[in-house]
Amino acid sequence: MDELRSHALAKAVDAFASLPGIGRKTAMRMVLHLLKQDENDVTNFGEALIRLKQDVRFCKTCHNLAEADYCHICANPNRQHQIICVVEDIRDVIAIENTGEHKGAYHVLGGRISPIDGTGPADLHIDSLIERISQNKVDELILALSCTLEGDTTNFYLFKKISAFSIPITTIARGIGVGDELEYADELTLARSIVHRLPYEKTLAG
Amino acid sequence: MDELRSHALAKAVDAFASLPGIGRKTAMRMVLHLLKQDENDVTNFGEALIRLKQDVRFCKTCHNLAEADYCHICANPNRQHQIICVVEDIRDVIAIENTGEHKGAYHVLGGRISPIDGTGPADLHIDSLIERISQNKVDELILALSCTLEGDTTNFYLFKKISAFSIPITTIARGIGVGDELEYADELTLARSIVHRLPYEKTLAG
Repeated sequence: MDELRSHALAKAVDAFASLPGIGRKTAMRMVLHLLKQDENDVTNFGEALIRLKQDVRFCKTCHNLAEADYCHICANPNRQHQIICVVEDIRDVIAIENTGEHKGAYHVLGGRISPIDGTGPADLHIDSLIERISQNKVDELILALSCTLEGDTTNFYLFKKISAFSIPITTIARGIGVGDELEYADELTLARSIVHRLPYEKTLAG
Repeated sequence: MDELRSHALAKAVDAFASLPGIGRKTAMRMVLHLLKQDENDVTNFGEALIRLKQDVRFCKTCHNLAEADYCHICANPNRQHQIICVVEDIRDVIAIENTGEHKGAYHVLGGRISPIDGTGPADLHIDSLIERISQNKVDELILALSCTLEGDTTNFYLFKKISAFSIPITTIARGIGVGDELEYADELTLARSIVHRLPYEKTLAG
């Protein structure tokens, strides 16, 4: 975008274009939107970003977002800290918290094993999970990763690593989504939902 | 997103969510992406935004982006300043400049007349266009607005305002896009392309 002829503008466009899913045209639209806004608002936006990396920290136990050394879940004495739910991302913590069904703690891996993206086990918070398991009493480890090839690979890797500790390991249920119609479900999901069928009484309880 | 429990994070998410076309989930994804980046990069992003409003100015003649009082087009003595192309937005200037077909100047209205969005003639840079026409010799005014109801309304409003100056007013051609197939063109476009048909020799010249 040589025609911009403005260094400040080009830098702002570059910054937005570096975000995931944002191309140069969208970045330009965002910058032009900001140029129309009040100077105070734009300055606040900039300062919010600068403070972001300084103020936001990650929990030393579970790698969730935290404002202190430990996140509000790990620091909460009312949570069942012997039940650890392993997730890929902080957004998954938020999503599961919104359901209100998990009363235990979390462990955020920070991604999944993906050879294509160059993410190996060493890039994830697996060592700290092993350490956490070996030093604390854990009653159950819930694997709540994506239902993809990469998620399954990560599940299997974790299962192999953790099986030595003889802790019950569970995974979240895979099946037909609530409100979904059978005829639109893909074959694999439908197959799994039949293989892992439940006694009817159990569905009444849940 | 009360579950975030982090003021710095919430502020950054709010800032991104204020951008056009960005919802809270996408904003959250952007912020989490930034949290994984190098602290320097994020600080630079923030500083680019703070400097944006300070450094980027608008041309006093045509309201295009400028680094000085006048934009690089208005300040260029090699452009035909008697031919003014009226556009809605700065992005339109960039798009037309990229074609290389317009050697004249521009006038950026900053939008179009849209009662639904609450944009009236007074919200656009129409007064400065009238002033520009009355004080300078203008050979042609090219209306290059969107081919929408709102664009047409704005065209008509400008036409009425400017007709007193007896300046030739043209609009960009409407018709079937280059590379488009007739059968997929909408009826109105096809109708216009027939009504405003050109002598074949003219298309050879262009």
